[in-house]
Amino acid sequence: MLMRIDHIGIACHDLEEKIALFSGLFDLEVVTREVNEEQGVKEAMLRIAGDSYIQLLEPLSEDSPVGKFLAKRGEGVHHVAFGVPDVAEAMEEVAGRGARLLDEAPRHGSMGSSIAFLHPKDVGGMLTELVQAAKPR
Amino acid sequence: MLMRIDHIGIACHDLEEKIALFSGLFDLEVVTREVNEEQGVKEAMLRIAGDSYIQLLEPLSEDSPVGKFLAKRGEGVHHVAFGVPDVAEAMEEVAGRGARLLDEAPRHGSMGSSIAFLHPKDVGGMLTELVQAAKPR
Repeated sequence: MLMRIDHIGIACHDLEEKIALFSGLFDLEVVTREVNEEQGVKEAMLRIAGDSYIQLLEPLSEDSPVGKFLAKRGEGVHHVAFGVPDVAEAMEEVAGRGARLLDEAPRHGSMGSSIAFLHPKDVGGMLTELVQAAKPR
Repeated sequence: MLMRIDHIGIACHDLEEKIALFSGLFDLEVVTREVNEEQGVKEAMLRIAGDSYIQLLEPLSEDSPVGKFLAKRGEGVHHVAFGVPDVAEAMEEVAGRGARLLDEAPRHGSMGSSIAFLHPKDVGGMLTELVQAAKPR
């Protein structure tokens, strides 16, 4: 079902500062910068290798999910995303195995992908995202 | 410098329970089970794809690093590990760029690997591990 670790989503207070930190420390290329109003974040994808990325997330407001996460836990890993061939199929499979989904239908993720989140309590405390890439990247 | 996201380390109270959860939910193969006395954990590696894994970590005692993490934060992502060609070289590079290392020299990781940890405060709040695989896996 899972094809790869697609990305590690990291919550931060200052996107540009953390882009400079991660790209400088590990020689990472910044592939995209986006604003996702629906999720209340501005974000950047930094390529580790192939289809694996670090995703940096700065909240657009304090009452967005990432804003609340930062207030409670501070900066650090917010979620982990796994690549799947078909996100709607994967949602059905994991739901059939008892994991609760936070999304009823796939929504828009980074770089034109379709995504869905699983409840962290059903995945060992890890907020888990399923990602279907828009096209071969 | 980074070749892949090698693994996501997840702290848990009951290793066998979480092996059953993750392998059942995502059809993951359990590649190894190990006890690492030095790090105070028993652990399992579940393959996502290729050289990417979920690593499940149960502390051997409450005063081990993972035991303290669980007491403070609960179950969830403990660290993220990136594959590097040569861990000693990578340690020198990141130290030269201002990141603090938690290890003075490489130590033993899962499946015969050599590893070193970076201070989470210097990597956006993410406890970060560098991994040199024992051999082509």
